[in-house]
Amino acid sequence: MQNKRTEISEVGEFGLIRRLTDRFPIRNASTVMGAGDDAAVIDAGDKYLLLTSDLLLEGIDFDLVYFPLKHLGYKAVVVGINDILAMNGTPEQLTVAIGVSAKFAIEDLEELYSGIRSACEDYKVDLVGGDTDSSVTGLTIAVSVVGSVEKERIVYRSGAKENDLVCITGDLGAAYMGLHLLEREKRAFAGNDNPQPQFEGYEYLLRRQLMPSAPTTAIAALRTAGIVPTSMIDISDGLASDMLQICRSSSCGVRIYLERIPIARETHKMADELHADPVVAALNGGGDHELLFTVPLAQQSRIAGVGGIDIIGHITPADTGAKLITPDGSEITLTAPGFVERQ
Amino acid sequence: MQNKRTEISEVGEFGLIRRLTDRFPIRNASTVMGAGDDAAVIDAGDKYLLLTSDLLLEGIDFDLVYFPLKHLGYKAVVVGINDILAMNGTPEQLTVAIGVSAKFAIEDLEELYSGIRSACEDYKVDLVGGDTDSSVTGLTIAVSVVGSVEKERIVYRSGAKENDLVCITGDLGAAYMGLHLLEREKRAFAGNDNPQPQFEGYEYLLRRQLMPSAPTTAIAALRTAGIVPTSMIDISDGLASDMLQICRSSSCGVRIYLERIPIARETHKMADELHADPVVAALNGGGDHELLFTVPLAQQSRIAGVGGIDIIGHITPADTGAKLITPDGSEITLTAPGFVERQ
Repeated sequence: MQNKRTEISEVGEFGLIRRLTDRFPIRNASTVMGAGDDAAVIDAGDKYLLLTSDLLLEGIDFDLVYFPLKHLGYKAVVVGINDILAMNGTPEQLTVAIGVSAKFAIEDLEELYSGIRSACEDYKVDLVGGDTDSSVTGLTIAVSVVGSVEKERIVYRSGAKENDLVCITGDLGAAYMGLHLLEREKRAFAGNDNPQPQFEGYEYLLRRQLMPSAPTTAIAALRTAGIVPTSMIDISDGLASDMLQICRSSSCGVRIYLERIPIARETHKMADELHADPVVAALNGGGDHELLFTVPLAQQSRIAGVGGIDIIGHITPADTGAKLITPDGSEITLTAPGFVERQ
Repeated sequence: MQNKRTEISEVGEFGLIRRLTDRFPIRNASTVMGAGDDAAVIDAGDKYLLLTSDLLLEGIDFDLVYFPLKHLGYKAVVVGINDILAMNGTPEQLTVAIGVSAKFAIEDLEELYSGIRSACEDYKVDLVGGDTDSSVTGLTIAVSVVGSVEKERIVYRSGAKENDLVCITGDLGAAYMGLHLLEREKRAFAGNDNPQPQFEGYEYLLRRQLMPSAPTTAIAALRTAGIVPTSMIDISDGLASDMLQICRSSSCGVRIYLERIPIARETHKMADELHADPVVAALNGGGDHELLFTVPLAQQSRIAGVGGIDIIGHITPADTGAKLITPDGSEITLTAPGFVERQ
């Protein structure tokens, strides 16, 4: 421990990782893109290889009280795959390293791996490495995914241009509302020997939280439609934070129209019950595992013909900032927790 | 948690990972080699890409009471690099994902990353991805390393042939003795406000535990000498366990001559002090970060000319088993904790 002490919260998560990785030079010719996008890009001759690593920690990223191990294994793979999709790539290989405490039996780990196997099957990725380690407390899952992409089809966060359309797959806020629902039932069950969960009518929210799927269909549809996005990012921290990442990387502003943000009926209903704003869940909730991307305005009719995608706004010059436009025409500056502007 | 409960200790670490990854088919043509070697092998056209992932957990893999964060960062990189070297590859890219609890300040993480940076510099690898996550307790480090190797130079664990010479880089048991020394001083310091550590004369043991280096020099020397090993493995769990891995993968036996196992003077001295057997430290201690490999008998004179390498035995037919030969000629069957024979 050092003499000067700066709390991590002072710089935010994004500021922290930038500060830590700032002074790392690139030495190898095969390194095309280092830190700062959804995946690293490695030159493999006639194509690019993509590499991403994620860490899932018990008590932070998941709660085993309501997260079945099989679903957790599946979700861990989806999380990694999405980073490869966000570069417009195809996921191909996967390694999983786990740290487990003595509270876990082999049967528990087999449950976890049956979920991993099921995701590998659904997304046609190969498990190519594994490692198990003891842990003092709880379960740690480290997932690395390798994918590939034709060089001319790679998409970075940095390619958004003025007037580009801002598009999104699926809907937002449901995973966050599913989490709230699970947390509420967990509190209700505490000390109750014969719990009766109140999940009826909310199966969609639970599925979004516990059984997320990767938007491979949308990526395939874009390919079929001959569309290569100008920029793309995996929405893992909520629309606001990930939109701001694109704006920063592409040196642009954005106008997002509030009423165009796709929010499921169940998300609205749950938000009503909780006296919460569903738009806040969409903007800052996180956990949606959808893709946010931009396409040239000229491709408007083409993108409109692709199913499962919504156009929610357009790219503006950097000096106009990142704005959310409400139905009455007021402008709200987009902000995100943990996102501190570069000094 | 399931009804039937089998403790992880019942099948051992190696049995566990085999049991978990057993039913995973390979679906992608680019996957050359999945789980079961030091690194995964991915076909990248004119060469192979290598991928390895490791997890380092506080309280299990390191103790921050005596492990400086800067050294820990350096060691985390070395651990990953060694898996690439063990495939006869060149490490090129690295991702680091960390989980940190609130006890860590930014200055602490900067220390950790200064060690990572220093190792990246020494071994010419590029940090291409990073992620930070909160954790409930302690520090978790997940390291993935990507490397490459010419297709004709790749070395697996499975290529050892009868009469091949068994070779080793560096010396064994010192890291384990360094760990014992640190643990002893930690106990002595407990409750002592003004501790005076007793490390004099044992700097080498401490260095092997706290500042390990990757045997890149040996790999380069083999290349210069025109030697491609028939099999190779990173010694991370002690000579016995890793030798048994080669024997199992190559379907062979081995004879290792006890007096030829390279053990440093300081390791002998520390073992005397602790009334311990330095050979046990070499066989089962772990943490040495050296390479164990085999070369054809015909290359005996060539390998003898390469510095920093010892010949410790030779490969035998599978039915003769894995034997340790003592100076008086007795044979001891090689066993390793955590290593349960395949059923």
